[in-house]
This record gives sequence, structure tokens and C-alpha cells, in this order.
Amino acid sequence: MRIILIGATGHIGKAVAAELKQRHEVITAGRSSGDLIMDITDPKSIRSAFEQAGNFDAVICCAGHTTWKPFVEMTYEDYEFGLKDKLMGQVNLVLIGREYINDNGSFTLSTGVTDHDPIPMGSSASMVANAISGFVMAAAIEMPRGQRINVVSPGVIEEAMGTYGAFFRGHCPVPAARAALGYAKSVEGLQNGQTFRIVL
Amino acid sequence: MRIILIGATGHIGKAVAAELKQRHEVITAGRSSGDLIMDITDPKSIRSAFEQAGNFDAVICCAGHTTWKPFVEMTYEDYEFGLKDKLMGQVNLVLIGREYINDNGSFTLSTGVTDHDPIPMGSSASMVANAISGFVMAAAIEMPRGQRINVVSPGVIEEAMGTYGAFFRGHCPVPAARAALGYAKSVEGLQNGQTFRIVL
Repeated sequence: MRIILIGATGHIGKAVAAELKQRHEVITAGRSSGDLIMDITDPKSIRSAFEQAGNFDAVICCAGHTTWKPFVEMTYEDYEFGLKDKLMGQVNLVLIGREYINDNGSFTLSTGVTDHDPIPMGSSASMVANAISGFVMAAAIEMPRGQRINVVSPGVIEEAMGTYGAFFRGHCPVPAARAALGYAKSVEGLQNGQTFRIVL
Repeated sequence: MRIILIGATGHIGKAVAAELKQRHEVITAGRSSGDLIMDITDPKSIRSAFEQAGNFDAVICCAGHTTWKPFVEMTYEDYEFGLKDKLMGQVNLVLIGREYINDNGSFTLSTGVTDHDPIPMGSSASMVANAISGFVMAAAIEMPRGQRINVVSPGVIEEAMGTYGAFFRGHCPVPAARAALGYAKSVEGLQNGQTFRIVL
């Protein structure tokens, strides 16, 4: 398969590339580096990258940001940021990619453990993660040309514990290579509309 | 208790008012009618209504819209509409209401059965419903001054089957009075961060 991987420089993206490169052609995409330059918050940039990509069978997104702040400090604009970036950025990939992807191609989006296990300062992350799961579940039953769509929701990544550990006390870290298996299951399997929770 | 009920003229809103008026003071609010005039998509309008309301112990929202369209026709703007209206409209009520509501007050938001049971044309509804559930679950653990927050997710309402029946084939309709019990449980009980699914 030819697989476009957005967000290939992060801990998860690197592990997904390592897992899938063994069996497939992986085309990396990112805002500032990669085989393709693509900003998921800019529909024009997404379209331009897909047009350059040639035929492809799968799109994987490991990109997107939300605002981490105590709930009492969260504003309308803070929630709006996550909705425009991590939610609609990933949805943009599907809305535009559905025109370009091969028949029976797949989309695999990313969320995280706050979809069911809330943490302090994570109200935007939980909102956005569940919005993505809900979108994936519902879009799955209407995807055109045999396309599939899933989402991977990994626990806090072991390699990122230096940065995020203090926010995820009591959470069992997941090695990035373990999380990457969720993406392989989505792309190389045949399930549709699923949220693959990778928690240990 | 003094309870502000937004969206009191719909099937569910009317049933919620009938259930709660038996034991509480219900102050209705709506875009064009009610004891208070309030447009949930306009933060200024929400603030003005809360300032007029005096002290209150609970906010219930039975309002909000999303776009119903086949997935292949859904655009960025179609999803944005539901995010601004039904999602951020209800979130606005909480972000502003948390300043005005009495200690230990409660917020009760509304979604629907497409949060777990997707239907054709419902990808925005499923996205928004899950975004609200995720927000509620996570905000609940950080609410100030003993405040609580829940969401009620009823099945298709029996009284609305004339309008919506064709979209919900195979769904068992829920009488509005049965759905209203979910709102009573949220307001008069002590649970927090829950999605009360009212399906038969």
C-alpha cells in the first residue's frame, strides 16, 4: 500500500512509520518537513498535498493540538482552538481525502486516553477526542467507494513521559511501538468506525 | 429550586417543565419567547439573561441544532454550524453560567441517541453529541463551588415521530415525559459528569 502519514516526526508518528515501512510505502507529511508539506488546518494546503501525492490507499493522522488549562480558566476561544485544530483539521483530511483516496482506502485519525479517562486541564482534549470518535463512528456507515475510517486512542506515550508525566499521574505509559500497532490494525485490517483504545 | 430552562417550547422542553414545575420554580428562556430572552449562540445574550434571572440553582438546556445531510454532501461549514450552535451554544451556557449559578448548582445539557447509534445523515449530530459528552465528563471533575454537570441523551421522541420517524427507522420512540425524568435525575440527584441515556 501507499500510505500518507501526517505528523511523522512525533513519538507516535515515528513509531507508526517504523511499523508500516516494513511492509508498505510510507509518504510523510508535515507543516514544515516531510515528503509532502501539509497544514491540516488549511484545506488548500491539504488539497495541494493530496494532488502531489499521486495514488494512495491510506491516510494516517498523528497531528493536532488542543489547549491544556484548568477548566475555570478555559474560555470560548480556548475550546474553539481545539475544534479548529485537532478536530476539524483531522476531519478536513477526510472531507478532502475522500475525493483522492483509492477505492477501499482507509483513514486513521488520532485521539487519546482522555476520551474516557479525564484529567485536570483536559476538558478541551476530552471534548475533541469524543467529537472525533463520534464523527468516525457515524461517517463510517456512509463512506463512499468502500472507504473505511477508524481512530486510535492511545494512553500517555512512554517516550513522552518526561513532558507529560506530571499531567497523567496514575496512568500506565504505553510504548509508542505498542500504540503504532493500533494504526496497523486500522490500515491493514478491515474494521470500520472503530475507536481502538491502546491502554495498558 | 429555581431552575432556568432553555428551549422550553420543544417536545422535550415542555415535558421537562411539566415534570419539574411540580416541585420547583421553572424560569423559561428562549430566542423569541419565555420568561427570559436568550440566544445560546450569543454570549452577550446569555450573560444578559443570567443577570436578569436573579439567583438560580440549575440550568437545563434543551436547545441546539446540527446539519442533517448525507456524509458525501457534508462540508466543513456544515460541521462548523453544529459546533457553533449545539456544542458551543451549550458550552457557552456553562462557561458563563458557572459565574452566576448558586453554590452546588447543576447544569444539564442535551444530546441524543446518535451519540452511540449512528444514522444516515447524522455525522454532525454524532460528532456534536460525543463532543458534549466528552466535555461534560471532563469539566465535571473541575467544576467550581460544588457545581455539577450532566447530559441527557434521549432516543427519538415519540411526539416528534411525525417529523423524524423516517430518519430513525428501527428506533424505539421515547415519550417526552420519560425523557424528562433524565433531567429530573440530573437536577434533583447528585451525580456528576454523567451521560444519562434514555432509550427504550
